[in-house]
Amino acid sequence: MPGKIITISRQFGSGGRTIGRLVAERLRIPCYDKELIEKMADESGFASEYIEEKNESAHSSSRLLNALSYGSMTAIINEERIWESQCKVLFDIAGQGSCVIIGRCGDRVLKDRYDLLTVFVHAPEEKRAERIVNIYGENEISIRKRINDKDKRRRAYYQLYTDCKWGDALNYDLCFNSAAIGIEKCADVITEMYL
Amino acid sequence: MPGKIITISRQFGSGGRTIGRLVAERLRIPCYDKELIEKMADESGFASEYIEEKNESAHSSSRLLNALSYGSMTAIINEERIWESQCKVLFDIAGQGSCVIIGRCGDRVLKDRYDLLTVFVHAPEEKRAERIVNIYGENEISIRKRINDKDKRRRAYYQLYTDCKWGDALNYDLCFNSAAIGIEKCADVITEMYL
Repeated sequence: MPGKIITISRQFGSGGRTIGRLVAERLRIPCYDKELIEKMADESGFASEYIEEKNESAHSSSRLLNALSYGSMTAIINEERIWESQCKVLFDIAGQGSCVIIGRCGDRVLKDRYDLLTVFVHAPEEKRAERIVNIYGENEISIRKRINDKDKRRRAYYQLYTDCKWGDALNYDLCFNSAAIGIEKCADVITEMYL
Repeated sequence: MPGKIITISRQFGSGGRTIGRLVAERLRIPCYDKELIEKMADESGFASEYIEEKNESAHSSSRLLNALSYGSMTAIINEERIWESQCKVLFDIAGQGSCVIIGRCGDRVLKDRYDLLTVFVHAPEEKRAERIVNIYGENEISIRKRINDKDKRRRAYYQLYTDCKWGDALNYDLCFNSAAIGIEKCADVITEMYL
């Protein structure tokens, strides 16, 4: 039975991060989200702001062209180093014991672990917009664009580094439509898998 | 909360049908699988063998070309009539109360129902082959081809009639890797959603 290391990939605004936090709280295990950035900064020597900026960016999809046209080889090398540091940090924390990992292609980096439970959380766009407006008080009109931009970046980043399709059910052990199932219930199901 | 009408789409050999039967047994509600063929035969006047043969076939993806080249307009019209009959039967049984529906694009045909829970069940190919060999005693070598053929047909059929991608997590409320989660556990989770 998998479930000692739980990875959560999620569409922006789907509540995947909240679900991960709930699961970690209930199981009393660490949850790594923004904390990963700090660890990557320590590991790589890059500033956490720089990592955050580069993170979930897939500019390097046209990396050769970029390098030839703009001489941006340094940026490309940095992205590769950040990716390597991300993998190292993920292996390290998974090696330390049970935890929840939010995003960062955790599911693919750690795919060879027998005790991995991979989760994908999604929801219809209108429900995600509603959720973001309610929780973060953002403007309904601009939020649709932000949702699309964020999802597009996450999809491209995942595809670039893992060669797998983000959101393809076949890549995950469990996928939830959080708007239909409910945030609490999603957390319940994942928590039960662990026991 | 959705879950009064439960649709299960599944990869061949993933145990989706078994999961559906277990859920229906536990909830004491009907499960429609092969039974749908009988109902479609009654409704349409076609023989059930003919429906079965045509079912989950997507030959009509090149329907115009077929019609022009081989004069197979009758077959195409029949396929359309079978599809219409399938939709009518699905609406009828969903109208009669809670049930589990296996395959037949039930998730898309009934997508406008507020009380629908849509499930997709998959598993890695090697696990599916193993399961089929264990349960049905089929030959391991020929089974891989059969798995691929069946999945290909289901994918094409789903795509043709629903314009959606079979197995895309975004199309379902819940997706399971039955090899990781376990058949019984999948049935547990779905059953809990109903309550």
